[in-house]
Amino acid sequence: MLRAAEQIAKVIGEDAVTYDTDVLEHHGHSDWSTSNSPERAVAVVYPKSTEDVSAIARICHQRRVPMVPFGAGSSVEGNFSQPHSGICIDFSFMDKIIAFHPDDMDVVVQPGVNWMDLNKHIADSGLFAPMDPSPTATVGGMVSTNCSGTNAFRYGTMKDWVLNLTVVLADGTVIKTRRRPRKTSAGYNLTGLFVGAEGTLGMVTEATLKLAPIPQDTSVAVVSFPTIHAAAAAATTLIRSGIPLAALEIMDEQQMAILNKHGSPTVRKRHWAEQPTLFLKFSGTTAAVQSDAARTAALLAQTPGGGGHTIHVASSRQEQADLWAARKESLFTMTSTRPAGYEMWSTDVAVPISRLAEMIAWSQAECGQLGIFASVIGHVGDGNFHVAMIYDPRDAVQKEAVAGCVHRMMGKALEMEGTVSGEHAIGIGKKECLRDELGEETIGVMRALKHAVDPKGVMNPGKVFD
Amino acid sequence: MLRAAEQIAKVIGEDAVTYDTDVLEHHGHSDWSTSNSPERAVAVVYPKSTEDVSAIARICHQRRVPMVPFGAGSSVEGNFSQPHSGICIDFSFMDKIIAFHPDDMDVVVQPGVNWMDLNKHIADSGLFAPMDPSPTATVGGMVSTNCSGTNAFRYGTMKDWVLNLTVVLADGTVIKTRRRPRKTSAGYNLTGLFVGAEGTLGMVTEATLKLAPIPQDTSVAVVSFPTIHAAAAAATTLIRSGIPLAALEIMDEQQMAILNKHGSPTVRKRHWAEQPTLFLKFSGTTAAVQSDAARTAALLAQTPGGGGHTIHVASSRQEQADLWAARKESLFTMTSTRPAGYEMWSTDVAVPISRLAEMIAWSQAECGQLGIFASVIGHVGDGNFHVAMIYDPRDAVQKEAVAGCVHRMMGKALEMEGTVSGEHAIGIGKKECLRDELGEETIGVMRALKHAVDPKGVMNPGKVFD
Repeated sequence: MLRAAEQIAKVIGEDAVTYDTDVLEHHGHSDWSTSNSPERAVAVVYPKSTEDVSAIARICHQRRVPMVPFGAGSSVEGNFSQPHSGICIDFSFMDKIIAFHPDDMDVVVQPGVNWMDLNKHIADSGLFAPMDPSPTATVGGMVSTNCSGTNAFRYGTMKDWVLNLTVVLADGTVIKTRRRPRKTSAGYNLTGLFVGAEGTLGMVTEATLKLAPIPQDTSVAVVSFPTIHAAAAAATTLIRSGIPLAALEIMDEQQMAILNKHGSPTVRKRHWAEQPTLFLKFSGTTAAVQSDAARTAALLAQTPGGGGHTIHVASSRQEQADLWAARKESLFTMTSTRPAGYEMWSTDVAVPISRLAEMIAWSQAECGQLGIFASVIGHVGDGNFHVAMIYDPRDAVQKEAVAGCVHRMMGKALEMEGTVSGEHAIGIGKKECLRDELGEETIGVMRALKHAVDPKGVMNPGKVFD
Repeated sequence: MLRAAEQIAKVIGEDAVTYDTDVLEHHGHSDWSTSNSPERAVAVVYPKSTEDVSAIARICHQRRVPMVPFGAGSSVEGNFSQPHSGICIDFSFMDKIIAFHPDDMDVVVQPGVNWMDLNKHIADSGLFAPMDPSPTATVGGMVSTNCSGTNAFRYGTMKDWVLNLTVVLADGTVIKTRRRPRKTSAGYNLTGLFVGAEGTLGMVTEATLKLAPIPQDTSVAVVSFPTIHAAAAAATTLIRSGIPLAALEIMDEQQMAILNKHGSPTVRKRHWAEQPTLFLKFSGTTAAVQSDAARTAALLAQTPGGGGHTIHVASSRQEQADLWAARKESLFTMTSTRPAGYEMWSTDVAVPISRLAEMIAWSQAECGQLGIFASVIGHVGDGNFHVAMIYDPRDAVQKEAVAGCVHRMMGKALEMEGTVSGEHAIGIGKKECLRDELGEETIGVMRALKHAVDPKGVMNPGKVFD
């Protein structure tokens, strides 16, 4: 492996390869992740072009050295861990916007581009890339985990926003999955196959992303409910109504209490009702936003499950931003409150909409029994939500209890015909769950496809399935 | 091959297998198709269940007999031709709605279900399946060609509406690609790979389709322009504006003239301006529809390219239906006007939006030189449009001229970074074009994936690539 690193240094430059243990540690472990491996890569390499990546792949392929692509390191299921060591390929220096085509409503970027930077860069055009995962996330990781976020209810997931990919395969072959049409039915959907493949089929070195028009107007409403079941049931009613909400998020009473105690100054300007709460975003023309907000209020007023709710609609642009900030910073706020040495186990599932209220109430009750901080938060518009638990990893009993709770939650989601990962992918952490979800035959097809393009098994080995 | 058919008859029933030459002819040739093969299957078999299909596959796989799935026979690129003969599998008797989940907004269907029947069946729920290809199309073919239609501008293509598939692989193995969550990032996107694979990777025997809420209100506008370039340029402006149109269609002056001459009585109630025309559909809340229609009219009035246009907005539900009928029946009307013995060559491309006006004007001019009936029609909202030419196949010179024109059109679309098939897939007719579009390396990956799941090459051989 070290020989491979040395050979890579000769091709892409000595300064583009590091063996520094702090750097290796940073690339092999994450506090956000539930599935860290003890092994580390022997080197981290920093390509600057598709040609560099292709050269790296040729060398590693010839020497059968594992390659592990690394984006921003914000994934949570061990997706960039190096359980078989190898070479870590960090895309930080491939962070260029290659071509922006406002008239075609698309943009060609390298994988190291951060989505928030991208949106700032193109804001004047009236267009934006609508996926909003972790603020630190970069395009390569977003593609590879098929990420989404709060905008998925309106805009779908990452797979819906990628027009084409340039991919370096395990042996260094470079392919482009499509040209640049917004719609096509020409040949196999390779773009859709590489999206969400977690770097196990190849490395994305360029992506053309579709862009959406920034809506003319938006509004935000916050609705509190007496119980989590009532909140989730109201969410189901809203989804089913067809009102085109831009986002539909849930936070439970624990999360709301944290806002009051530990929120940023902006968020603490307001006293938050410590009750299960839906965060709603409306967007479209000004007329549509007003009409959608009015229909939503009327619908909640009629709904039996909506009994006892309190609705607050933002009265200004500033208040919209302030209300939404509470939702967006909740994860960071929660993390910042954990005691020293404690870790957060964050997991997510998605279930059919009609089962959502039951699934959320069940999860909250199940986690509540652990006697630790546990909270429900998420993108209920998609039937997808997160549970976050803060636990002491030095306490083996507690750690096992948390793992057991997560396992039962996965089982429950599958019973409801749901999925074990709504937007975090599989990584190392959920390999067994994926087998439970899809069965050995379906995993067998995935394995055959992987073998077809990576017969030596050098692309991000040990992920998704064994 | 005949032995395989006899063996199949023993398993799924003698009455489920036919050797009738008229039936074989109907399943091996289509007047709609540009790419018929002279060969025919030795038998057509009619499975009634996934188990039947699996048994058929086991027998054919063991004997290395080609299997060609057949839906409604409405595809146009030879997708269901049998160039290597074999067994044709007709899904007509797998036409059941297996489970309708209105609260989850999805429906589980067999591949032989017709989309219009499905939408009639579920209309009372306020939900619909939004893809609208040929009125005769069935779900299996819609999945396999990644179809779309006039609703794609708002709703995307078939791949965006399939939650899971049950697939019988070449050797008879049955897999299910997902359970039933609306959103997932768990494992490879096999659903997205089988959608658009034209039955070359396996046979779809069950599909769960996402459904959309039927919009509260709709409106339709028809806008005439002095030139095709002005019409296409106005379309580009509308797309770029972000007004959420439900559909944006174009018909050229030839098409409009046909409406006046040969349209149905409903369509001929109105005299149509024989000019390049955009058909616009608005949908959403009543307030949104009114606001969108007003913004559209204002935008067209301001646009330099919009000079000289005439806009007519439907004033009643009935008029909306009548105006839209003109667009929907145009293809059939055109076909019905062709002289005896003449055929129609229908092809489509899609290009980046900014190139659309140029591409359409170029195509119209190019076809216009042939001295035959040629017309532009299509889904400009997606940068996708069709050219239809009516020619005499007995006239070798004319046939070659038409083929040459189509070939140049493909080349032009690729020059513009477009695709050789927006919604008709590849079949036999566009295999060479696909290679031109994506290159040998990318086709090589498709071939490797195909080989991984169908090493004997028995699933719909001779399609998509060689």
